[in-house]
Parts: sequence; C-alpha cells; structure tokens
Amino acid sequence: MDEQSAKKVRSRVRRIAGQVAGIERMVEDGRYCVDVLNQIAAARSALDALGIELLSKHLESCVLGKGARGEHERAKEMTREELVAEVRTVLARFLK
Amino acid sequence: MDEQSAKKVRSRVRRIAGQVAGIERMVEDGRYCVDVLNQIAAARSALDALGIELLSKHLESCVLGKGARGEHERAKEMTREELVAEVRTVLARFLK
Amino acid sequence: MDEQSAKKVRSRVRRIAGQVAGIERMVEDGRYCVDVLNQIAAARSALDALGIELLSKHLESCVLGKGARGEHERAKEMTREELVAEVRTVLARFLK
Amino acid sequence: MDEQSAKKVRSRVRRIAGQVAGIERMVEDGRYCVDVLNQIAAARSALDALGIELLSKHLESCVLGKGARGEHERAKEMTREELVAEVRTVLARFLK
Repeated sequence: MDEQSAKKVRSRVRRIAGQVAGIERMVEDGRYCVDVLNQIAAARSALDALGIELLSKHLESCVLGKGARGEHERAKEMTREELVAEVRTVLARFLK
Repeated sequence: MDEQSAKKVRSRVRRIAGQVAGIERMVEDGRYCVDVLNQIAAARSALDALGIELLSKHLESCVLGKGARGEHERAKEMTREELVAEVRTVLARFLK
Repeated sequence: MDEQSAKKVRSRVRRIAGQVAGIERMVEDGRYCVDVLNQIAAARSALDALGIELLSKHLESCVLGKGARGEHERAKEMTREELVAEVRTVLARFLK
Repeated sequence: MDEQSAKKVRSRVRRIAGQVAGIERMVEDGRYCVDVLNQIAAARSALDALGIELLSKHLESCVLGKGARGEHERAKEMTREELVAEVRTVLARFLK
C-alpha cells in the first residue's frame, strides 16, 4: 500500500477507536439505550467502510498487482486462485 | 438495566475497544491485509452482539417494562407507539 | 396484524419475488456480473426492510400487545421474557 | 463463467425464488411472525452466499482474467483500476 493510502487507513482506525471510547463512556454514564445503539450502528458502518477500503487496496496491490512492488510477502507465495479463494473467505465473514 | 447486565455490557465494550486497538497496531505494523480484515470482521460481529444485547435490555426495561423501576427517564415521556417506532428506526440503521 | 399492515407486507413480498425472478432472468441471459450483483444487493435490502416491518408489527401485536386482540396463538402461550428472548434470537440471525 | 459455475449459480437463484415463494405463502396463511422472520433471515443468507459466489467468479473471469477468454464484453472496455473501483462500489452496496 502506498503511504497516502496507509495514512488514510490509519486515520480511519483512530476515528473508530474514538467512537468505541465514546460508546464506553456512554455506557458508564448510563445513557439512554437508543442513543448508545445509534453510536454502535455508526461504529459498525465505519468498520465496514474501513473493510471495503482495505479490501480494495488488497485487490489492487496483492491480487491484481501480483508480481509488482506493493505486494505483501504473504501474497507472494500464493497463486491467483489461492488469493481469490482467500478474498472469498473474508467476504463470507463480513456477510455471514 | 440491573447491575449485572450493565457489567456484562461494559465488559463487552472494553473487549471491543481492545479489538480496535489491536487493529490499529496491525495497521501500524503493515500486517497482511487479509489478517487485518479478519480482525475487522471479528470486531464488527462483537459490535452486533453488543447491539443485540442492548436492544434486548431496552425492550425489557423501557418498552415492555414501561412504568416499572428500570425505565430510562427519556422513555418515560414516550408512548408505546413512539417506543416501537424508535426501535424500528434503530433496526433500520443496523440493517441498512 | 390489522388488514392494512398485512396488505402492505404481502405487497412487499410480491415485489421481492419479482426482484428474484429478475435476477433469475439476468443469470440465464448471462448478464454482466456487476449488474446482477446490484440486483442481489437491492433484493437483500428489500428483505431487510420486510424483516424490520414484520418485527415492528410483532412487537406491537404480540410482545407489547400481549393479551390484546391482534395477538398470535403461538405468542399467547409465552411469557414476556420468552417473547423478548425469541426476538433476541431472531435479531441474532439477521445480524450474524 | 464456465458452464459448471453458471449451473451452480442458476440453481442457487432458483432455490432463493423457492424460499421467497415460501415466505409469500406463510404471509398469506397468517403464520406466526417469528417463523416468517426466520425464513426471511434464511433467504437473506442465501442471497449473500449467491453474491459472494458471483463476486468471486467476477474477480476470476473479469478482473484477474482480464484479456482471457471468459471475460464479459462490458469488462473488456474497462481498465483494471475501473474494475477495482466497480467492485468497491458493489461491496459498499452489500455492506451499507
């Protein structure tokens, strides 16, 4: 992944950590359940967006970019068929 | 919510905060995308489980328990129809 | 469920049946995968909306409406705790 | 897509059509809401599985298989970057 993408991913994760810290405080303060549920739904959407971001980067650098510079060590030892099978397993986890 | 349920909810939120901190470290360390994605999927499932827990408690204490002790201040001013409409909106956020 | 709600639910289900029939035709015609995927995502959202509609009606007629007219036979034999536990299980299926 | 994969996809879609027809009958017969909801959750999971199947095939034939036999006409006119962007949009629809 190029530095700009990595930076964007890191800032997304930090924002999610902030959202979860917010949920923790709301629970400690005994806030109204529905308000907490809305924050949980927001954190979940942010995790989904992060997942989509990372998966696209993975498709670019490791699956399509096979053999090119940006590729991960782990992906290097895998065939394209193995990489697609791996993406399929990950998708099933997100959509299960 | 009774103290035992509140404790369980708090411990779930703390575990999720730990999972997100783990994702942050994995991203910093440039770990393999698919490993990060699996952690994201796990945190997402944990958030869903927390949402279901909280929503059940909300149905028990505020919607069904209308008029009883455990009810939230905010729920007191609402009719049952308003409470069901609110639950419906929250569900739509989770399933949208 | 009152007649108006039942009518609305039936019309939603018929629309989903139409969407799935459309997906079947697209697959038979060898249409572009991404177009089929968009239709699948649309049918999935429609199923979610139907689920939320039915769950709200269930909360109104069987869980909150315990003892009242609209209640289902099956719900009559259950306590409120059992009804909330059942809703919780259903939510877990939708969000699993 | 090869003939064997296409056959598998068609049989999945037909099974989903059967599930939705079952939901239609359950609604007509005024069956217990929670039973209908369980069927809706099952149809939704089947749609997700179909989506994952199709997306994997799309990655194999059109994104990775760019230039090879199995590729769709529509994919031929697109660059790899455009194909990844399209996959990203589809994922966002499934996870939104």
